[in-house]
Amino acid sequence: MLKRLLDYNDGEEFDLVLMIKNSQLRHTKNDKLFLVLQFSDSSGEIRGNFWDATNQDAATFSTGSIVEVNGKREEYQGRPQIKIYSMRVVGPDEGYDLSQFVKSAPEKIPDMKEEINKYVFEILNPTWTRIVRYLLKKWDKCFFDYPAGKSNHHAVRGGLAFHTLSMLRDAKGLADNYTQVNRSLLYAGCILHDMGKVLELTGPAATQYTPAGNMVGHLVLIDEQIMLAAQELKLDLDSEDLLLLRHMVLSHHGKFEYGSPKLPQLLEAELLHRIDDLDAAVYAITNALQHTEKGTFTEPIMSQDGRRFYRPKDDQALDNSRHLE
Amino acid sequence: MLKRLLDYNDGEEFDLVLMIKNSQLRHTKNDKLFLVLQFSDSSGEIRGNFWDATNQDAATFSTGSIVEVNGKREEYQGRPQIKIYSMRVVGPDEGYDLSQFVKSAPEKIPDMKEEINKYVFEILNPTWTRIVRYLLKKWDKCFFDYPAGKSNHHAVRGGLAFHTLSMLRDAKGLADNYTQVNRSLLYAGCILHDMGKVLELTGPAATQYTPAGNMVGHLVLIDEQIMLAAQELKLDLDSEDLLLLRHMVLSHHGKFEYGSPKLPQLLEAELLHRIDDLDAAVYAITNALQHTEKGTFTEPIMSQDGRRFYRPKDDQALDNSRHLE
Amino acid sequence: MLKRLLDYNDGEEFDLVLMIKNSQLRHTKNDKLFLVLQFSDSSGEIRGNFWDATNQDAATFSTGSIVEVNGKREEYQGRPQIKIYSMRVVGPDEGYDLSQFVKSAPEKIPDMKEEINKYVFEILNPTWTRIVRYLLKKWDKCFFDYPAGKSNHHAVRGGLAFHTLSMLRDAKGLADNYTQVNRSLLYAGCILHDMGKVLELTGPAATQYTPAGNMVGHLVLIDEQIMLAAQELKLDLDSEDLLLLRHMVLSHHGKFEYGSPKLPQLLEAELLHRIDDLDAAVYAITNALQHTEKGTFTEPIMSQDGRRFYRPKDDQALDNSRHLE
Amino acid sequence: MLKRLLDYNDGEEFDLVLMIKNSQLRHTKNDKLFLVLQFSDSSGEIRGNFWDATNQDAATFSTGSIVEVNGKREEYQGRPQIKIYSMRVVGPDEGYDLSQFVKSAPEKIPDMKEEINKYVFEILNPTWTRIVRYLLKKWDKCFFDYPAGKSNHHAVRGGLAFHTLSMLRDAKGLADNYTQVNRSLLYAGCILHDMGKVLELTGPAATQYTPAGNMVGHLVLIDEQIMLAAQELKLDLDSEDLLLLRHMVLSHHGKFEYGSPKLPQLLEAELLHRIDDLDAAVYAITNALQHTEKGTFTEPIMSQDGRRFYRPKDDQALDNSRHLE
Amino acid sequence: MLKRLLDYNDGEEFDLVLMIKNSQLRHTKNDKLFLVLQFSDSSGEIRGNFWDATNQDAATFSTGSIVEVNGKREEYQGRPQIKIYSMRVVGPDEGYDLSQFVKSAPEKIPDMKEEINKYVFEILNPTWTRIVRYLLKKWDKCFFDYPAGKSNHHAVRGGLAFHTLSMLRDAKGLADNYTQVNRSLLYAGCILHDMGKVLELTGPAATQYTPAGNMVGHLVLIDEQIMLAAQELKLDLDSEDLLLLRHMVLSHHGKFEYGSPKLPQLLEAELLHRIDDLDAAVYAITNALQHTEKGTFTEPIMSQDGRRFYRPKDDQALDNSRHLE
Amino acid sequence: MLKRLLDYNDGEEFDLVLMIKNSQLRHTKNDKLFLVLQFSDSSGEIRGNFWDATNQDAATFSTGSIVEVNGKREEYQGRPQIKIYSMRVVGPDEGYDLSQFVKSAPEKIPDMKEEINKYVFEILNPTWTRIVRYLLKKWDKCFFDYPAGKSNHHAVRGGLAFHTLSMLRDAKGLADNYTQVNRSLLYAGCILHDMGKVLELTGPAATQYTPAGNMVGHLVLIDEQIMLAAQELKLDLDSEDLLLLRHMVLSHHGKFEYGSPKLPQLLEAELLHRIDDLDAAVYAITNALQHTEKGTFTEPIMSQDGRRFYRPKDDQALDNSRHLE
Repeated sequence: MLKRLLDYNDGEEFDLVLMIKNSQLRHTKNDKLFLVLQFSDSSGEIRGNFWDATNQDAATFSTGSIVEVNGKREEYQGRPQIKIYSMRVVGPDEGYDLSQFVKSAPEKIPDMKEEINKYVFEILNPTWTRIVRYLLKKWDKCFFDYPAGKSNHHAVRGGLAFHTLSMLRDAKGLADNYTQVNRSLLYAGCILHDMGKVLELTGPAATQYTPAGNMVGHLVLIDEQIMLAAQELKLDLDSEDLLLLRHMVLSHHGKFEYGSPKLPQLLEAELLHRIDDLDAAVYAITNALQHTEKGTFTEPIMSQDGRRFYRPKDDQALDNSRHLE
Repeated sequence: MLKRLLDYNDGEEFDLVLMIKNSQLRHTKNDKLFLVLQFSDSSGEIRGNFWDATNQDAATFSTGSIVEVNGKREEYQGRPQIKIYSMRVVGPDEGYDLSQFVKSAPEKIPDMKEEINKYVFEILNPTWTRIVRYLLKKWDKCFFDYPAGKSNHHAVRGGLAFHTLSMLRDAKGLADNYTQVNRSLLYAGCILHDMGKVLELTGPAATQYTPAGNMVGHLVLIDEQIMLAAQELKLDLDSEDLLLLRHMVLSHHGKFEYGSPKLPQLLEAELLHRIDDLDAAVYAITNALQHTEKGTFTEPIMSQDGRRFYRPKDDQALDNSRHLE
Repeated sequence: MLKRLLDYNDGEEFDLVLMIKNSQLRHTKNDKLFLVLQFSDSSGEIRGNFWDATNQDAATFSTGSIVEVNGKREEYQGRPQIKIYSMRVVGPDEGYDLSQFVKSAPEKIPDMKEEINKYVFEILNPTWTRIVRYLLKKWDKCFFDYPAGKSNHHAVRGGLAFHTLSMLRDAKGLADNYTQVNRSLLYAGCILHDMGKVLELTGPAATQYTPAGNMVGHLVLIDEQIMLAAQELKLDLDSEDLLLLRHMVLSHHGKFEYGSPKLPQLLEAELLHRIDDLDAAVYAITNALQHTEKGTFTEPIMSQDGRRFYRPKDDQALDNSRHLE
Repeated sequence: MLKRLLDYNDGEEFDLVLMIKNSQLRHTKNDKLFLVLQFSDSSGEIRGNFWDATNQDAATFSTGSIVEVNGKREEYQGRPQIKIYSMRVVGPDEGYDLSQFVKSAPEKIPDMKEEINKYVFEILNPTWTRIVRYLLKKWDKCFFDYPAGKSNHHAVRGGLAFHTLSMLRDAKGLADNYTQVNRSLLYAGCILHDMGKVLELTGPAATQYTPAGNMVGHLVLIDEQIMLAAQELKLDLDSEDLLLLRHMVLSHHGKFEYGSPKLPQLLEAELLHRIDDLDAAVYAITNALQHTEKGTFTEPIMSQDGRRFYRPKDDQALDNSRHLE
Repeated sequence: MLKRLLDYNDGEEFDLVLMIKNSQLRHTKNDKLFLVLQFSDSSGEIRGNFWDATNQDAATFSTGSIVEVNGKREEYQGRPQIKIYSMRVVGPDEGYDLSQFVKSAPEKIPDMKEEINKYVFEILNPTWTRIVRYLLKKWDKCFFDYPAGKSNHHAVRGGLAFHTLSMLRDAKGLADNYTQVNRSLLYAGCILHDMGKVLELTGPAATQYTPAGNMVGHLVLIDEQIMLAAQELKLDLDSEDLLLLRHMVLSHHGKFEYGSPKLPQLLEAELLHRIDDLDAAVYAITNALQHTEKGTFTEPIMSQDGRRFYRPKDDQALDNSRHLE
Repeated sequence: MLKRLLDYNDGEEFDLVLMIKNSQLRHTKNDKLFLVLQFSDSSGEIRGNFWDATNQDAATFSTGSIVEVNGKREEYQGRPQIKIYSMRVVGPDEGYDLSQFVKSAPEKIPDMKEEINKYVFEILNPTWTRIVRYLLKKWDKCFFDYPAGKSNHHAVRGGLAFHTLSMLRDAKGLADNYTQVNRSLLYAGCILHDMGKVLELTGPAATQYTPAGNMVGHLVLIDEQIMLAAQELKLDLDSEDLLLLRHMVLSHHGKFEYGSPKLPQLLEAELLHRIDDLDAAVYAITNALQHTEKGTFTEPIMSQDGRRFYRPKDDQALDNSRHLE
């Protein structure tokens, strides 16, 4: 296997194709311009400065560009950086794709697809299963490629599917304990709840919000998709089954201030909201702990009210778990 | 013209067909049952007690029933009430309809329809005008019949159209002052913003929320209607024009806690929200002041944070204005 | 098996020993006194009025008394009530105990004890296992007898243990999915988190808060118990293991306004809080739905922000589940 | 007409008298001092650095100074800046005044004065009209010269009068639609509501809060002015008319947290608050949109809860409107 | 000394002149009207029912009337009540005054006046002392007669002066400990802070808010008084001393939501706010504890966030303290 | 007496042993590293830059190091700084201790100890006096050495005792005015309330939170200490006296969001909370005012909701008061 960006050690030179994840033009006090660049590939990210830049360079080496970099890994103030020897933009016909330069979820896409399909088989209600299958098919490519968010959690390639799958596993445990739960409705809700993100976000690399994401949002976007699908499938637009499913996705943020137009009013909607929130929290906390030394606290985690979490000195379970980002 | 309920004076007897707007079974301390009934017709409401009731009577004379009442208007503790001589349920074949017994908005439906249509002519954008005309036609009967709410404001027959029209008049004044406003978008937003109430509410009489009203809400319900209409009309589902219109209706409550999944992000969406809120406030305050003596404060108005409003001693403008409810 | 209070039908007469769960002295408009009594045994509760009461009767038949009632079940305004023929207080030597007259959790105490012990075996850390075993033994009788609360959720005999056990089952599912979790710490936290309620509450019948419950609260009460136990067991009072366990119980309400002096700062503390909250919510929602007709909404559930929950028309899973209260 | 600061193009040299709107002393990494200066005249602002400064220079070229600058306009990182050749402070006897160097409201002061006076004529109540005329006369010069705020909105010369006038126009539209409104009271409230800013702020150039502005605030400052005027005019200090007018100005911020000691308790006070808030919002949003490219979002607008607003791709109305700042 | 209302025992008959503190017309289930009356004199309050009332009786025996009652004290459900034999309205020429029938503060008015005057002597600043003396003289009668509030705390005759004096004592202790405090300013603030209540409230008996109280409020009312006094005294209206004093009274509620238009921005203003709040809290808590049995909790105290306070079993200090209400 | 850091004037050279209170590695634009150092001794702090640093230097001259500095005091942009000639780390055997380099409270430790002991003598209840004496003895050294906080207030050596003593003085004044207060309980609460800070903080120099401070907090830490002491002293663990004392310390932050697991439910607990908060506020405001010029506002004080406080032009009392930090 080819060496990737993070496989190089201090002092080693390399020639790699990388994505510019972020590019900012700055100037020194004596008015020289330079670019602060964040390079990434699927192994992670390192920063580097491009000195004596021109305004032209800033336009050429912009955020989201794919470049071939000839350089060296160095240590600077305890953090790695790249000393750039030369750099050129890779052309569209050279066969590279942005999504190659993004970190991926810790499980393989075909495996996730297969396991999610097993849950689909357990959705017994005909309205819900037809809509779930229709939309899974319609958005298949994006659904298994997109992240679940821009930065907070599961912001990796395949993160949307990984988040969905992890929630389905939680849902199974809870439905086993609480037999009063409608398992079909809960599974259908898990699968669809964030699928609107394929319309809300621009994709897995250099992820941004689309105008529809900003002005409609993924809760209503998937609700619209459900209605349009129901019309295509000639389902009864006024049926209670359809209403329950719409309510699941529309209420899953659980609080008005997070953009839910309605609060959960079904036992299964309440569970969907809680599983969603729990899975995101576990991901964000784990990710922060994995970047923290034992016996110390993480940086404040913004998605968790700015709390810092403590990594105990004796911490075997976390040690043995796979790295998220 | 026939005398209606509020046309009778103390001591006068009558024989009238009325709606039971509210019916509650209570019992005296010595365990006799009686019904507390709120009677109404299009002139207003009066309360009356039906003594020595049975459980059967409670089922017969339930909320929403139409009854013929033989009785007398009395004064009791400073408030009018009905002394019931006899009462019978009116059959479905006697030609009465619930909506006859409800108060109506202070302007005539044909007049409102005509004036609203004038505003439709000023919507110049082809996407918006086609959707507005399509939905106005689809929901024509309900739109001019329904109230704008269950109780807070414009809770009268035709209240939805009256609220819409009053907002359009405000919108015109503001668009004249602020020339930077897209008048077409603002008018289209005014007309559609509350149209989802035809799906959220059960109708003008004995108004309740539908399950879809409770679990989806009129903001998303009209958004769904816009999308389904666009599909029927074969409009581009991804166009910016369609997005702007959806954003107008989805953000018009202006705050997350009032069920807007998105906050206004267009100048016109901000104005739509403010006009909506202002028109509702003016209605609620005016209605309360009209039931308050000069030189005193109203009861706390719940929709206005429980504030009491003062009716000045010298108050000609209010005196001369038409009565709302 | 003997017939209990709820086993009688309308019109049937009975002679039963019952607990007075609540007693209130009221007076009729013509100044006659009467007692409004809530009777209960382990099958449930029915209300009845004791007419022509004296102040002496009010003192005799007070909340928490055990009485022998000779009476008849009647229907009144659609709800059952007891017509009292005669009633006498049962003496302390007649062998009755308050806790007999309280509803019990839906699982048997020996079964729950056995299953909880299985989880104790999976706590591998020596500090945590010693403290858990010490306190489970010290409070054994109360822990399996007390409710988990005064009224909100699990307000039944054995409710504390049932809530604990249900949480352990949820914890197992989550620890299986999230391998980074320290399973021992999470289980120890689940078992101890609400054990302070044996000091906070007065017991399973006519449950009230103790002064220590009001002025210290069960979070700090169990923390104090842990420290005193550690001193008794001659454990290191400054060890990190002890600190982590204290943090688990002190932070488990998850929000300052619910009385947590600290917010969760461990991944396991975050999970403990969420499992606790989730199990209480599922219980409260399920209990409300079980008292609601299909196709309608529950009364507002206070512990869930006053939300009403909808019971779908087709609701097999809930139909088939055991009744909670 | 003379060329002003923003009339020069890149590379052009000039000799202009300008105001230093902001001056900050900084130092380079090798400990050389320099001044970062914001220059302005009535055409707008440009930034420039004054290199090799001394502490003496910092004192000389301080915020609010008027200077003659000999320099050249340059392009730097996509934004204009001034390269300073030489600079000297203009003496007090050279006939310059700070207010010359400030941007002005988009309407002419005499026009605004004339239009406002037309509204004064419609105030029919003798108490209100006398106080309005007295205070308009007393503060005439400042009222038509001051901005309406330090930075949020209408922060231009004449902004206070422009904001007042724009509100009067809105008020007229609303009073036409809602005939129950006391037009005299509403107009009087519009004219006086922000007049206290002539005491709260230091003036149109380099605007700061006065101690009285910080410690009393413009709502109470104008209320005090009304009382002192009433005493001077020998009006009845206890009349209801005077009370209503005081309530209008004291409640116009509409929320306690914005410094209103009382919430609106008059229909007209409610409208005054809403018109004030609406006019400020329209100004701030329009100003932000005018600095934003089509098809993109503005920067977060702090006065609007940090929301970003979208400027549609097709945006004729905004294009054709006059520029605010 | 004459026996007062609370000096009579159960079963004793009396003939007394009393105030009707509250009068409400109710009706029995069989539609007989009766009045529920709260009688009071300076010893306290007892309730009584006036049976078979007419609408005329309700108008005659209204809230705030002075009546001669011939009746008997009885015990009813553990609480005293009056059985009314006969009752007549006392004429204006019979020499009674409402304020005779109100409870008084626990210290004598002349004593309080003398002690407050000692504090006035310690106000050394000429502006503050002249205004304090002017307003103390202008409002002398009301200031020592009015309560400090309608119901929350110090709602007794002379309560305003008692609250003021108690705060001055606290202020002295704090100024002794914190020598950085401007004692003159703090004392002047204490004396004036609530003096606006003489305009906000109707008086010591049957206390209501005036329209000016509702629409301007006592903070701004005293600020206006200070300005008018300054004008009368020909003081400099723009002096910093005057500004500091105005800020003291305007900010003394300490929070916007309690109607302070400005938050404290002086050390002395911060202290004034805290002393005011503390004295009110001590009064309300003490009053509630004095009506509570040892070893139990008070009813929720609304002014203290609805908290219940505990009265310890061993509670000598409270036992020995004077009763407040 | 030896000259200390702040005793030197601009241009004077010195050779002093100082603590590095804060050390940060930065780099110039041309990639040279330097250290920004905050030096302190008991007279205060001055900043200095260490140029041409290496990563090794950063490790050597880290936060909390004691160093001998040969340098010169200079003026730079109006603020003092140190020009460093040479610098070396002082060895552990040279007899210096971190706490020598920290500012101290403005009163002497022996004086404070003596005065606090006088208050201890006034605690008459045997349970409270035994626990107070036991814990004062156990933590004697730390209690008179530690600060009361990391930065907000009393962040000086001996600050904890100074804060405690100042509160006792306030408590005395209030207990004199309010005779209903249990003086013993209030004094015991004052002395113990913050004693948990000896476990929460690391000490007087370079103060940090301990893990127990972060995860348990000083309220519960002192509660645990009280319980362990009671066990050692063989006091009744269930006594009401013990419960009252625990409640005092557990509720003293007065609000849930400040980490109180219970809100004050005793009159004395309410007073303790208010005295604590008041003393901290007076300290923080005074400290800020002492660093502010007359006639201007302080920087926003974070602990006081970000308010700025005004220092009046005529401000004798503050002038004459001792400097806090």
